Amino acid sequence: MGLAICVAGMPGSGKSLVAEAARELGLKVVSMGDAVRHEAVKRGLPVDGSTLGWLMLRLREERGATAVAELCLEGLELGEGAVVFEGVRSMAEVEAFKRRLGRAVVIAVHAPPRARFNRLRRRGRSDDPSTLREFKERDSRELKVGLGELIALADHVLVNDSTVEAAKRRARALLIKALKRGLGWAGSR
Amino acid sequence: MGLAICVAGMPGSGKSLVAEAARELGLKVVSMGDAVRHEAVKRGLPVDGSTLGWLMLRLREERGATAVAELCLEGLELGEGAVVFEGVRSMAEVEAFKRRLGRAVVIAVHAPPRARFNRLRRRGRSDDPSTLREFKERDSRELKVGLGELIALADHVLVNDSTVEAAKRRARALLIKALKRGLGWAGSR
Repeated sequence: MGLAICVAGMPGSGKSLVAEAARELGLKVVSMGDAVRHEAVKRGLPVDGSTLGWLMLRLREERGATAVAELCLEGLELGEGAVVFEGVRSMAEVEAFKRRLGRAVVIAVHAPPRARFNRLRRRGRSDDPSTLREFKERDSRELKVGLGELIALADHVLVNDSTVEAAKRRARALLIKALKRGLGWAGSR
Repeated sequence: MGLAICVAGMPGSGKSLVAEAARELGLKVVSMGDAVRHEAVKRGLPVDGSTLGWLMLRLREERGATAVAELCLEGLELGEGAVVFEGVRSMAEVEAFKRRLGRAVVIAVHAPPRARFNRLRRRGRSDDPSTLREFKERDSRELKVGLGELIALADHVLVNDSTVEAAKRRARALLIKALKRGLGWAGSR
């Protein structure tokens, strides 16, 4: 039996820090955002924020709440170990991963709205918001598909309120805790 | 100008620890749950979980999303200081408090679902769930009025995952931070 470690958080909260910490531990990481980006490229769509946001919703309309989760599972070789899914947006997606891998755990990453906005402006990825209006639109799109509920019901919350290094240390500790419990490693609980 | 310190969290997450820490600091605390309980008594209704849950939704249907917030503000003497509102459930309520007090800050309290369920069963207040089904029903009622979004968009998150004493220490630190920023105390930021 495997383990899906589902990483959830609002845009700019610091999900990628958990992904980085997971890669450093040698875990496989699948980015849900990349799956949507690949699908945009496949459909010949531009890779900007509003298009990706639209496509993320469109895929759900076309194929249901687990559309993006299924794109992520396509072609994924599953062993007995853990897979980290970065950017999970709803409990329906968690359930889809759980059905396929056997167990699932949810780690939510939190940062205050103001810090997230500043971070996204600095990051400036093609799909990142540059105005407060775009930022709020993106937030409400993510909340609409169930991200708020998922964060509220998470098994663990990582508060990303100090340095990158501190957040990565906490991420590593949470990942190890999740592995111990989820895969029944020696010394668990 | 005053400050509304809005404390939000799923049932059993530990909101009352923040309220306790606030009282120990000498702050005024208003319980949103008590406002619903008083309204139930006023209407001659039983004070059990499903009735209070129904009334919390019913009040919103009758008077809008800020119905409970307005019950809390009725008869409240507002000075220039801070008031802690325990059990805020939506951004609409935060906005109502902000309109009245001038500023608002949101502190979310988080605990894993399993820990919350165990805590509520131990607590055994008249409106607490005794079965997993009742617990899930109560969770989904709270999420329905916007609690997930509010937690996702909180300014601060208190992770209540160790001892009561540790959580209260963190609560105190967060309250002081909120006061410093919100009321512009000396040395703020």
